[in-house]
Amino acid sequence: MAAEAAELAEALRLQADTVRRLKQERAGTEEVAEQVAKLLELKARLGVDDGRPRFLLKTPKGTRDYGPKQMAIRERVFSTIISCFKRHGAEVIDTPVFELKETLTGKYGEDSKLIYDLKDQGGELLSLRYDLTVPFARYLAMNKITNIKRYHIAKVYRRDNPAMTRGRYREFYQCDFDIAGQFDPMIPDAECLKIVYEILSALQLGDFLVKVNDRRILDGMFAVCGVPDSKFRTICSSVDKLDKVMWEDVRSEIVGEKGLSTEAADCIGEYVRLHGELDLVEQLLQDPKLSQNKLAREGLADMKLLFEYLMLFGIADKISFDLSLARGLDYYTGVIYEAVLLQQQNDHVEEPATVGSVAGGGRYDGLVGMFDPKGKKVPCVGVSIGIERIFSLMEQKMEASEEKIRTTDTQVLVASAQKKLLEERLKLISELWDSGIKAEMLYKKNPKLLNQLQYCEDTGIPLVAIIGEQELKDGVVKLRDVATREEVDIRRENLVEEIKQRTCQP
Amino acid sequence: MAAEAAELAEALRLQADTVRRLKQERAGTEEVAEQVAKLLELKARLGVDDGRPRFLLKTPKGTRDYGPKQMAIRERVFSTIISCFKRHGAEVIDTPVFELKETLTGKYGEDSKLIYDLKDQGGELLSLRYDLTVPFARYLAMNKITNIKRYHIAKVYRRDNPAMTRGRYREFYQCDFDIAGQFDPMIPDAECLKIVYEILSALQLGDFLVKVNDRRILDGMFAVCGVPDSKFRTICSSVDKLDKVMWEDVRSEIVGEKGLSTEAADCIGEYVRLHGELDLVEQLLQDPKLSQNKLAREGLADMKLLFEYLMLFGIADKISFDLSLARGLDYYTGVIYEAVLLQQQNDHVEEPATVGSVAGGGRYDGLVGMFDPKGKKVPCVGVSIGIERIFSLMEQKMEASEEKIRTTDTQVLVASAQKKLLEERLKLISELWDSGIKAEMLYKKNPKLLNQLQYCEDTGIPLVAIIGEQELKDGVVKLRDVATREEVDIRRENLVEEIKQRTCQP
Repeated sequence: MAAEAAELAEALRLQADTVRRLKQERAGTEEVAEQVAKLLELKARLGVDDGRPRFLLKTPKGTRDYGPKQMAIRERVFSTIISCFKRHGAEVIDTPVFELKETLTGKYGEDSKLIYDLKDQGGELLSLRYDLTVPFARYLAMNKITNIKRYHIAKVYRRDNPAMTRGRYREFYQCDFDIAGQFDPMIPDAECLKIVYEILSALQLGDFLVKVNDRRILDGMFAVCGVPDSKFRTICSSVDKLDKVMWEDVRSEIVGEKGLSTEAADCIGEYVRLHGELDLVEQLLQDPKLSQNKLAREGLADMKLLFEYLMLFGIADKISFDLSLARGLDYYTGVIYEAVLLQQQNDHVEEPATVGSVAGGGRYDGLVGMFDPKGKKVPCVGVSIGIERIFSLMEQKMEASEEKIRTTDTQVLVASAQKKLLEERLKLISELWDSGIKAEMLYKKNPKLLNQLQYCEDTGIPLVAIIGEQELKDGVVKLRDVATREEVDIRRENLVEEIKQRTCQP
Repeated sequence: MAAEAAELAEALRLQADTVRRLKQERAGTEEVAEQVAKLLELKARLGVDDGRPRFLLKTPKGTRDYGPKQMAIRERVFSTIISCFKRHGAEVIDTPVFELKETLTGKYGEDSKLIYDLKDQGGELLSLRYDLTVPFARYLAMNKITNIKRYHIAKVYRRDNPAMTRGRYREFYQCDFDIAGQFDPMIPDAECLKIVYEILSALQLGDFLVKVNDRRILDGMFAVCGVPDSKFRTICSSVDKLDKVMWEDVRSEIVGEKGLSTEAADCIGEYVRLHGELDLVEQLLQDPKLSQNKLAREGLADMKLLFEYLMLFGIADKISFDLSLARGLDYYTGVIYEAVLLQQQNDHVEEPATVGSVAGGGRYDGLVGMFDPKGKKVPCVGVSIGIERIFSLMEQKMEASEEKIRTTDTQVLVASAQKKLLEERLKLISELWDSGIKAEMLYKKNPKLLNQLQYCEDTGIPLVAIIGEQELKDGVVKLRDVATREEVDIRRENLVEEIKQRTCQP
């Protein structure tokens, strides 16, 4: 018994150690985390090791900076888009870059895995917005708005595989125009397509085509092909890949991974190869299988109406009714569309016929109701312009054209011909600024005249206002035209007017 | 011994339970967190319970939506600020909303705890930008830019305690203007102050004051008061609170928490009560203690130069040299400034004399070097306009003035006087859009004329283009002035020109 007791005592001692260790561990977990954070901060504070900073000098994967030249292009594109949105009477709103995590949950189907979550630092669980549509629906429900036409231009975030040369980023702009409200069918829908047409025409990106389809036609098609209801959305996701992969690959995905019968798959395969215009709508309204389905009939009737309105708008020639168009997002309920740029004739032959989607959208009548406490629906239809791909194309175009892009609006450089005139330059430039003239000067006490003129050449400033001892005595300023090198003395009191006249830019 | 063994065995059993429990607890911590997340997601996915959604219908704490009215005000303020930045010859850049976590680490001192981190979802560790200055410095170092004048308007993120009625948010805009490059002293610094002056004057927010100081003067002051070098930054953070709390509170913080001697604290207390203009600079240049310190002498000499330039710019009357100004951020190295709005005479007496900072900035000559692999420095000076507080004030002003703010630019509503004219309205509005006219129509097949006119009253649309059977027959459109109710028939081919003439807006 003594041996047994000793053994037990020993076991007890060992176990007590374990308890102590586990308790310490538990306390330690938090402490260690804190310590690690502190050490990391210390490491970063110290900054250098062997004279080199430890951190990587880069932007996060899938993101980019916009330098002044890129910004000049970006602002040109935005101004085209915004003026179109305003021409159509849109108001503008903005929402926060992040939403409560639960606001985004369950809205994007299989794409939800690409949502960026914020770290739980205490308080609410947040995620970066994935598009502007769900925040818009949340905004409508929260403010009980049943009727609005608005645009929203802002960055959205997707943890996708970036392909930056083709304009695919993890942080990218969306330019959204949406019409919310209970209206007569297809009138707002047609306006959205008119907007896509106007913007793509104005941006002069070459020929384009807008594919349209309807979720009700797709669902009707799935139904008549024998797809079970529960698989509509997941099969829809597969069909959505048809713009990137061949039918054979989609077929093997829906048969293999998603467990559809080969008969159902082949039935879908027959439909998704169809595209046309009003004639195809008419044909499908007569289709022995599809015409039996109520949803499909509704979708086809609306598609017919849509084409009538598009003809009145004079844009039907660029619209293609395409049964292979599916769109990935869960929330669409009616018409859907996607604009693609068509390849130029003289491009590489091996390339596919389209360079990808530059705009897309559709009708989502159920999304606002998902946020409303009483489930009250607000029908919505909208379009999103995928601006990054357009930027990429514009940048390439600019570089190819060798057009020199000015990145400032400066009208005049305030310069001096002699030394010791800093004070006089400061006085003159201050006068010009106060009169609304866009003016710069070199931040040097005694800059050389040649350097001042060179700065104008480099940056495209059209005029130089030069002061020297003589000009100050005479109450004039020598105004030089940088392009022609002509110089005229202008009385100081007339300088502002003269500069305004010579630079008619706003 | 048997009793002892039994006791030990019992103790062992109890302890074994404790071990098991602690081990389970350890494993459980992570599991519970996962379970909670899953349940929350499931809850949100299920969406409704008793017909109500389970999720909260709100924006994240400290954030807000901007509706069309707020956006109209926001765009007015931005346009004032941007035109000032452009008047001073600035280019524009943009950077991603998040940076690598390590890019931000060690740049903000005690404020670092307010940085939003993203969840580790695999890949890089990211944080939301805390300001636009550190991303700017990263951009300069990464692109080896040694010379640029740029502005950047974008949202930044701080996990601070929001006070939204006073314009303090967790997501808020900063409007930054910075000049980077090696230049003659205080010329760019003076321009930054001129910009603050121009913007605050243009926004007509009432009287304001710009406090200036210099980190070198502060550090010199700390040195001559006997503060050890290692405590400069933390004491600086305490002094920074002087705009919100009394000196007594700051004093007890630096003596109590931060362990400074009462003599050192009182010495600081003597200095920080000083404020004035050029005369104070002269006085401190003669100060028996401060003039012994090299850093302080440098700072004071530059402050003298700054005031000379500010006088040439005609803005010295709004600038106050204030030794209590410290600025919280770690990266400042020279002149610092902060603009405050002064209380109107007729406001509440109990309120403090200032409504808080609306702009701030300073010189940060070391920040770019922290990113450069060789530590190469690029001197920088800049200013940030704190736009949210200005928005709050503008919104209050607008509401008080009862000025009706239009939220669209629509020039004309296309209306019909009879039924069955939808197609004709669509044709006409399409013609107007194609000619660049901003036009709307009601999305109804057969809207009542009264409803169409009411829509114009509500939204401020100045003109209505009315078509009926007779007008179509005669090839005219009835153009109605909403304000005067006058109606004139205009030949259809002259309509665009007539609308343009009547609505001279751009």
